[in-house]
Amino acid sequence: MWGTGNPKIGILMGSPGDREQLEDAIRLLMEMEVDHEVHVLSAHRNPEKVRDYAAGAEQRGLQVLICAAGLAAHLAGAVAAQTTLPVIGIPIQGGALNGLDALLATVQMPRGTPVATMAIGKHGAINAALFALQILALQDPAIREKLHKRKEEAAR
Amino acid sequence: MWGTGNPKIGILMGSPGDREQLEDAIRLLMEMEVDHEVHVLSAHRNPEKVRDYAAGAEQRGLQVLICAAGLAAHLAGAVAAQTTLPVIGIPIQGGALNGLDALLATVQMPRGTPVATMAIGKHGAINAALFALQILALQDPAIREKLHKRKEEAAR
Amino acid sequence: MWGTGNPKIGILMGSPGDREQLEDAIRLLMEMEVDHEVHVLSAHRNPEKVRDYAAGAEQRGLQVLICAAGLAAHLAGAVAAQTTLPVIGIPIQGGALNGLDALLATVQMPRGTPVATMAIGKHGAINAALFALQILALQDPAIREKLHKRKEEAAR
Amino acid sequence: MWGTGNPKIGILMGSPGDREQLEDAIRLLMEMEVDHEVHVLSAHRNPEKVRDYAAGAEQRGLQVLICAAGLAAHLAGAVAAQTTLPVIGIPIQGGALNGLDALLATVQMPRGTPVATMAIGKHGAINAALFALQILALQDPAIREKLHKRKEEAAR
Amino acid sequence: MWGTGNPKIGILMGSPGDREQLEDAIRLLMEMEVDHEVHVLSAHRNPEKVRDYAAGAEQRGLQVLICAAGLAAHLAGAVAAQTTLPVIGIPIQGGALNGLDALLATVQMPRGTPVATMAIGKHGAINAALFALQILALQDPAIREKLHKRKEEAAR
Amino acid sequence: MWGTGNPKIGILMGSPGDREQLEDAIRLLMEMEVDHEVHVLSAHRNPEKVRDYAAGAEQRGLQVLICAAGLAAHLAGAVAAQTTLPVIGIPIQGGALNGLDALLATVQMPRGTPVATMAIGKHGAINAALFALQILALQDPAIREKLHKRKEEAAR
Amino acid sequence: MWGTGNPKIGILMGSPGDREQLEDAIRLLMEMEVDHEVHVLSAHRNPEKVRDYAAGAEQRGLQVLICAAGLAAHLAGAVAAQTTLPVIGIPIQGGALNGLDALLATVQMPRGTPVATMAIGKHGAINAALFALQILALQDPAIREKLHKRKEEAAR
Amino acid sequence: MWGTGNPKIGILMGSPGDREQLEDAIRLLMEMEVDHEVHVLSAHRNPEKVRDYAAGAEQRGLQVLICAAGLAAHLAGAVAAQTTLPVIGIPIQGGALNGLDALLATVQMPRGTPVATMAIGKHGAINAALFALQILALQDPAIREKLHKRKEEAAR
Repeated sequence: MWGTGNPKIGILMGSPGDREQLEDAIRLLMEMEVDHEVHVLSAHRNPEKVRDYAAGAEQRGLQVLICAAGLAAHLAGAVAAQTTLPVIGIPIQGGALNGLDALLATVQMPRGTPVATMAIGKHGAINAALFALQILALQDPAIREKLHKRKEEAAR
Repeated sequence: MWGTGNPKIGILMGSPGDREQLEDAIRLLMEMEVDHEVHVLSAHRNPEKVRDYAAGAEQRGLQVLICAAGLAAHLAGAVAAQTTLPVIGIPIQGGALNGLDALLATVQMPRGTPVATMAIGKHGAINAALFALQILALQDPAIREKLHKRKEEAAR
Repeated sequence: MWGTGNPKIGILMGSPGDREQLEDAIRLLMEMEVDHEVHVLSAHRNPEKVRDYAAGAEQRGLQVLICAAGLAAHLAGAVAAQTTLPVIGIPIQGGALNGLDALLATVQMPRGTPVATMAIGKHGAINAALFALQILALQDPAIREKLHKRKEEAAR
Repeated sequence: MWGTGNPKIGILMGSPGDREQLEDAIRLLMEMEVDHEVHVLSAHRNPEKVRDYAAGAEQRGLQVLICAAGLAAHLAGAVAAQTTLPVIGIPIQGGALNGLDALLATVQMPRGTPVATMAIGKHGAINAALFALQILALQDPAIREKLHKRKEEAAR
Repeated sequence: MWGTGNPKIGILMGSPGDREQLEDAIRLLMEMEVDHEVHVLSAHRNPEKVRDYAAGAEQRGLQVLICAAGLAAHLAGAVAAQTTLPVIGIPIQGGALNGLDALLATVQMPRGTPVATMAIGKHGAINAALFALQILALQDPAIREKLHKRKEEAAR
Repeated sequence: MWGTGNPKIGILMGSPGDREQLEDAIRLLMEMEVDHEVHVLSAHRNPEKVRDYAAGAEQRGLQVLICAAGLAAHLAGAVAAQTTLPVIGIPIQGGALNGLDALLATVQMPRGTPVATMAIGKHGAINAALFALQILALQDPAIREKLHKRKEEAAR
Repeated sequence: MWGTGNPKIGILMGSPGDREQLEDAIRLLMEMEVDHEVHVLSAHRNPEKVRDYAAGAEQRGLQVLICAAGLAAHLAGAVAAQTTLPVIGIPIQGGALNGLDALLATVQMPRGTPVATMAIGKHGAINAALFALQILALQDPAIREKLHKRKEEAAR
Repeated sequence: MWGTGNPKIGILMGSPGDREQLEDAIRLLMEMEVDHEVHVLSAHRNPEKVRDYAAGAEQRGLQVLICAAGLAAHLAGAVAAQTTLPVIGIPIQGGALNGLDALLATVQMPRGTPVATMAIGKHGAINAALFALQILALQDPAIREKLHKRKEEAAR
């Protein structure tokens, strides 16, 4: 686990091997100077830790949770089951089906427990970070400003 | 188009036929007493209206946009291209592939333009509404309270 | 919840609507006169109850757990995360993808947390019951005898 | 952007990385001595430029537009929404699903906004160029002659 | 076979059962007052007739060919093999895979023989007709005018 | 084109690049000392040659035809449309979908024109040769003997 | 089990419920006056009977075997493992995946044990019968004649 | 074939090439000091040996059978057809479809013959071994103890 300051965004990944697909996303949060924390926690190996983390996240001041997992990717759903904070899911690319399984296991949530799902792999990871920033920007003019600028620059 | 009060949530659907899959979602917003508005606008038939709506949404005080479309579902992506507000996508069930096309066209967004994708069809629609409420709840203790109560009741 | 005697087999289904696909399976257990219990518990709506049930199952004398769920079917995985009892998963048929999502979310478990997955829907449900009986038969000559007879009759 | 003379064919690609898959197609247009222009424009990063390009294409004398994009490939659809010129779509190969997402996002257009879709990747790209030439050949005997000759040679 | 006047657009369908999915498309051509002809010809049952039709189409003054077929849909490819006229393919919805097979068999053409593929089923059929009109409009200001008007009306 | 003696088996491949996947199959025919011939002929580039070959095959004494093609694989179907000889199809592995398109385009033939389809790629190719030998063996005790021996050896 | 005279073609189906999809195929064999027999035998319920049937088929004078099964369709492969007679597989339409599973389980045979696979469902069934007739026709001029006539009539 | 002591677990693989995907699984059994045996036997090449092995397994004292196969993976089903011992299936990763075919051919078993299916490839293999141990643990406190310890360690 590592993190910065007083984190608003919590990032969980199901396995240490997922880190590489999340690197650009984490770098973006650092560039945007938004405090965040990162944990490696598996819904299947560490269910209690995942539960405690998710159930306590709101209390600890976190505002958005990002969960990345592959294969039968249950992490985002397990977290969303424990909190009413917005949960964003990243299907990790890999395995025999290259992430199609993770996509369906993340996005096809039944009514009552939403997971905001992004694209498979690195594209999805960076978009998860951006989406978390878009949520924070609703209350934070500085982030909003940075997002506006970023969008304008990309459009040039 | 119809809506209530001073809308915080804007809902777009690509075709009038999508309404039935969105009904439970809209009913939820009404039960939760959150102001919203609903428009039928197609990214392909009404690209200018979609653009104007999306580009002006932040200015008009909207905080979250929900876009539902089927087939080669471009609506959420077209909206996300015009705003830094959080955009939630609902893949509409139907057509020869029953929504698998809409799911992939909504979720597989390239880096830089996130769309928070929900499950195909009615499950996804109601979760889109819930997720929008979870975002608003970060600033609105009344909504937060309702979401907590709702979650507790479901858990019984 | 309902059940018989001193249950050896615990059956969980994610939603009351799954019951119809499980009926033949439950009838088989009754015909075979094997004590069992049935609960409706969702990994997403009732995560605590699922956890408590799974974590306490071995203590209560249960020997095999059968979990049926649809869509992003996490139930079997969530149970398997809490116990070393054998967990059998049934992907429920339904939704826009008709159970393909549930199949992948059930079967593609990462190393360390096995879920013994059966076919989508009713075929899988009855096979889940049979497989649970095959496990019990290793210690119970009466069940073994019945399974042998049943197999011989089917082969005629 | 680059191009030749008085372009009849406009080629858009969603990202600079798509160029490699388009090279044979562009070489074919040069060999056939048909004026064309090539732009890198993303439906999601540069929606205004895409709109202006598409809306002004007919006025500028362009006759056919070719759009190549990957993932949730909206480029061809976004262009087709703005013009009644024939629009040809090339699903770019790549990403976790290797272009299946781009194929569905390009071809499954709703009624009213056709996109003439080609195969995923390089095969599709060269066929897009050929198809554009087949359209121009209806008015241009020189191109028609070249296409006839080419077809005869391939048949030998 | 039936048709009108001096046909510019030739429509082939692989089986009489495909007619229902093409009806709106044919009605559009009649509304737009564009001469066309319609044949039921199978690439597998009537290969000679398909060949003769395709090989003679340009000579007979046809400008665009539309081919609709289901399952292992070879009709459009067989026609495209015989002509340099633009060939548009419609994957017919139906069969065990509901048109996914027809889509892949139509769109995944190897380099050298383009088929402009539309969406599966009725959406694709009407778009095939529109796309054929867009091609003819390049030489026919009256059609162009009608397409412009139609697009404006749809955008309202 | 090459071949041996008085060929009973004709092998067509759609492109020279398919040869590598057919090598083990052709070697098997040579080991079994069964006369055969091999041609590179594309249903899309050389439709007349394919037609002439298929229409004349029975007359020339061929008894079984094997057709290998990738992508929108029409070769086997185009041959089967011209003859009542048994036609075996091999979906070539490759392209963005790695042969799934070729499989569906080969196997999903409509009623009236059978193509006996084998597995994608090299497995399918060698099985196509074996299957052709099984057909010839019905009239040829020497081949039958060799197939029996081969099967016994594999079973050891 | 039923059959006619001195059967040349043996048809196996995995379950009585498969009969409806085979009816047109069996009717064709009767119209063509080719002796055949039909059995309901499951590779999973009756493995010994399947083995005995397949292992004894050549001895009994059968020349072609047709096997129809659904889901994890092993019947054709199990038969092919026991004989060097040509084995034709029909993937039965049905179940949650509507026959896609049966198609892959039938066609994707490893090297050494070919199964000639037809389309999913009724189309495949009638083509299986036709293909069996095409094999018999190599030795039987009367059948050959009938197949030629049939093909000519279809082409009209 | 190789094995240890008085085997409780029998492992079959369809081809020698599958061994690499099973190595971690076999190592786990050795670490857990559970006697097992390993055979390379194909359902298609060695059907008699597979039958004899499966039919005699219970008699020989085996308690759980693990079957790994790729492509049209029939091995687990063929074994399950011959015994009422619990049979676990591992879909081997590989081939043109990378194991999706093996997954469906293993898991979609019809009612009456269960196969407990694990994930495609190495993840599934190690989980198959774990699941076999979970079954044995019901009667063997030493294994149970080891599984408990292992689970606790993983959760840290």
